[in-house]
Amino acid sequence: MGRVPPMTTRDTIRVSEIFGPTIQGEGALIGQPTVFVRTGGCDYRCSWCDSLHAVDSEYRDTWKAMPPEDILAEIEKLTGGKPIMVTLSGGNPATQPLDRLIEQGKAKGYSFAMETQGSVVKPWFADLQMLVLSPKPPSSGMGTDWRVVANCVRTAKAAPTVLKIVVFDEADYAFAREASERFRELPIYLQPGNHTPPPPEDDSATVDQEGIDERMRWLVDKVVEDKWYGARVLPQLHVMLWGNKRGV
Amino acid sequence: MGRVPPMTTRDTIRVSEIFGPTIQGEGALIGQPTVFVRTGGCDYRCSWCDSLHAVDSEYRDTWKAMPPEDILAEIEKLTGGKPIMVTLSGGNPATQPLDRLIEQGKAKGYSFAMETQGSVVKPWFADLQMLVLSPKPPSSGMGTDWRVVANCVRTAKAAPTVLKIVVFDEADYAFAREASERFRELPIYLQPGNHTPPPPEDDSATVDQEGIDERMRWLVDKVVEDKWYGARVLPQLHVMLWGNKRGV
Repeated sequence: MGRVPPMTTRDTIRVSEIFGPTIQGEGALIGQPTVFVRTGGCDYRCSWCDSLHAVDSEYRDTWKAMPPEDILAEIEKLTGGKPIMVTLSGGNPATQPLDRLIEQGKAKGYSFAMETQGSVVKPWFADLQMLVLSPKPPSSGMGTDWRVVANCVRTAKAAPTVLKIVVFDEADYAFAREASERFRELPIYLQPGNHTPPPPEDDSATVDQEGIDERMRWLVDKVVEDKWYGARVLPQLHVMLWGNKRGV
Repeated sequence: MGRVPPMTTRDTIRVSEIFGPTIQGEGALIGQPTVFVRTGGCDYRCSWCDSLHAVDSEYRDTWKAMPPEDILAEIEKLTGGKPIMVTLSGGNPATQPLDRLIEQGKAKGYSFAMETQGSVVKPWFADLQMLVLSPKPPSSGMGTDWRVVANCVRTAKAAPTVLKIVVFDEADYAFAREASERFRELPIYLQPGNHTPPPPEDDSATVDQEGIDERMRWLVDKVVEDKWYGARVLPQLHVMLWGNKRGV
């Protein structure tokens, strides 16, 4: 390999897509206007992944290596230069060197929320406006190392941190209960899974919204039945409004 | 009028319905398990009211005068005695003497959120976990006295206070902008109106969810277009999941 400027190797971020402003469709910040920066690459392969185009290395050629300055310039273009909350998503954005993007964005008034499964820890978690930890339940086919999740929580320090668990079935629900028991101090959001995620190359694929709604109602019943009054149950609002369509 | 025990006259609350636990379907606490206490009677008559059965005095004979002790007993029955967030709704719950209910409930670990248009001020606003002020936009046919709304905000003191504005059209949207300008310190939630509210005697009436969703998408576009990145746009989740059905 030839010599490359150190800054480029250290700071270049793999980006799958940047889009918005639209509203955050999920979790604690639901309904909040935001720009999404979706990074490429993931250490997980969830069976029901709804963002395979940002996960599977088969789509690597659609990802772009970008320095933080260029990403921020793109965000500013989208927002007309008016500061907004930026959502860092993926893939697993924790695998990317996002520290300088966050630092530069904050200097211009932007704030950053990030969603990650909690499998990779980075010191800059502490600079986020919100860290959403989303350990993956059994239906994903993935396993969770709770010590790493706990390390994410510790590393986030004063940054508001919440749990978000996708729930497809009873086993996933039990997993959510366990997560909540392990991190009693964290607010928890439950989200009914989408069993009709888009194939990576077809974001016009039909969503079984009625099936998802049915799961949502089941989840509300579960929470009520178990008197789990501290949990919040929220759907994927963007799927309700726009189906599997990307960029909204 | 004969002599009655002072406590009864001062504290009796007119209740239209008590139901739950279910999730809060709207606004800042969306997705949160809660029991609803819907009081009877309102100083407003919004053209698109979705709770006329708790507003129109024609339905007065379905309301029950209850002392706070009885309401709390009913709440405890519904929750199995496990503390929950109680949502005080109406009608206009600010017209009712809710101070002792809140006091007694808090002593048992319950918390109370309330939604009101901001036309009536009560000192016990300060005891709420959340005060949702929902001034009614032009499409309602009602007018807003902003001095009274400001007095609600002042009286709530440290109680978290937010604005929620129902939006049907451009004039309503302009009203929401005005509300936000007047109370820059308050978080604001915008909610697309339901143009197919249930007639008071038929909660199985069909909802035009596609029409409401269309309004929601329009509202997201408006907020983005105006770079109003501080506003949050949220639907009525319970209507999406259960239509006009009551008690959910």
